[in-house]
Amino acid sequence: MIVLKSKVELEKFLRNHVHDYGFVPTMGNLHSGHLSLIQTAKKYSQYIIVSIFVNPTQFGINEDFSTYPRTLEQDIAMLESQEVDAVYVPTIECMYPVESKLWLDIPSLTKVLCGKSRPHFFNGVLTVLLKFCLQISPQFIILGEKDYQQFLVVKEMVNSIGFNTEVIPSPIIRNQNGLALSSRNSYLTETHKAEKINKILFKAAKNIIDTQNASFFLEEAKKELLSFIDDIDYLELRSNFNLEEYSIDKSLKDFRLFFAGKLEKVRLIDNFYLGEIRV
Amino acid sequence: MIVLKSKVELEKFLRNHVHDYGFVPTMGNLHSGHLSLIQTAKKYSQYIIVSIFVNPTQFGINEDFSTYPRTLEQDIAMLESQEVDAVYVPTIECMYPVESKLWLDIPSLTKVLCGKSRPHFFNGVLTVLLKFCLQISPQFIILGEKDYQQFLVVKEMVNSIGFNTEVIPSPIIRNQNGLALSSRNSYLTETHKAEKINKILFKAAKNIIDTQNASFFLEEAKKELLSFIDDIDYLELRSNFNLEEYSIDKSLKDFRLFFAGKLEKVRLIDNFYLGEIRV
Repeated sequence: MIVLKSKVELEKFLRNHVHDYGFVPTMGNLHSGHLSLIQTAKKYSQYIIVSIFVNPTQFGINEDFSTYPRTLEQDIAMLESQEVDAVYVPTIECMYPVESKLWLDIPSLTKVLCGKSRPHFFNGVLTVLLKFCLQISPQFIILGEKDYQQFLVVKEMVNSIGFNTEVIPSPIIRNQNGLALSSRNSYLTETHKAEKINKILFKAAKNIIDTQNASFFLEEAKKELLSFIDDIDYLELRSNFNLEEYSIDKSLKDFRLFFAGKLEKVRLIDNFYLGEIRV
Repeated sequence: MIVLKSKVELEKFLRNHVHDYGFVPTMGNLHSGHLSLIQTAKKYSQYIIVSIFVNPTQFGINEDFSTYPRTLEQDIAMLESQEVDAVYVPTIECMYPVESKLWLDIPSLTKVLCGKSRPHFFNGVLTVLLKFCLQISPQFIILGEKDYQQFLVVKEMVNSIGFNTEVIPSPIIRNQNGLALSSRNSYLTETHKAEKINKILFKAAKNIIDTQNASFFLEEAKKELLSFIDDIDYLELRSNFNLEEYSIDKSLKDFRLFFAGKLEKVRLIDNFYLGEIRV
């Protein structure tokens, strides 16, 4: 595995190793969720590039850019054992030699859920991924379903522009108690509380599918969640394909239950696809 | 000169003719203004690609997309004599195989002038030029200074994304009476009225530089213009570099006089760079 520290090194590598690449973008602080993205990538592509880049443009002004966990040496050691071809660790100056004044948006997908409370987030994600796409021209980009809205938004950008790249979703990886893995979990001191969230969400999703009564079980879940978390940002059923709001005339199997909320001031997100829940 | 009618033909051409290209995007209905863009391109690049594509996404819903003059045969005949390597004439389906849901903007540049009255315009221009950049990877893009705001906006996009492309401005070409050439001039029946506009603008620009009294001569010019045109969209001094508004503490030589207005319901634009006006 080669470590590429600049765009110049990346370009040289790509010139000398002309392949179709599967690309796994990460912000580092790698855990089993990231390793699972790499495993998904390997199903689609023989050659894999992983990036580690804490992208400043996707953090809001009061968010955790400066404190986001950075564990580069440990990450590289972890990737060594994964049979990855290259890890790309550009500096901020390399990705943003000048300030990006371009605003990128998929308005049909970003006015809801995380886009509502984090208005700069998707612009930042799209900006950095557009740059990565241009630099790497990957055949596949692998994104985790934990950030399902991000997956849809990036996929729509790639299709809209006409990149020759397929955006592949990779299932959420959870710890033994069902908590969706996230680098931000390390901010928590009372992990057992966070571990209750997915159980409540899963129960709600299952009850909704079983009874076809969405509104009652959403309200129940909200009450339960608010008994131990600080705040619910959203708990909503939205289309798995275009994030449209659920209404009673639509088939629940096409919807996903989306959650975001705060526990110990840490923003946690999770989701369950109702089409996958066995009745 | 080869005529490329699809993305596939373009890709094949570029594979077989690997050069650094100067790229001249047009909407066809070519006139001496376009030929001048090609001459500018030749100063920078040995190899030239011209596109002809009436881009639907840059027209507003009540604008002239359907009536915009399309004269492809004549255009191709004109280009034959210009020693252009290829003319790319993609279909709408080829440029937009799916609807583009991506919104592109340079908010620091598009909230004023044409962006104010034509909110979809720059998104459309950026969308199609992003696609062209990806398809052609030109070393240079040549844009006319008549659409000076467009030049700045596209240049900013290219820099923000980090394309290896330089955006080059090319001077306005005018008819013998000073009217800036534009395909939309063909909509006019009373061309002599349109020909008065540039004289009024030039006089105002010269008076402003001579006297350093911007507000008085802007008002004078507005009165004169409104005596024979239907409407002024804007008549403003803005920075040549970032479209900042003029204020009295700034050097007028860094500013450009921008005009848009309507005559016989035809939207006309023009501009004069004060830094170029001889006192």
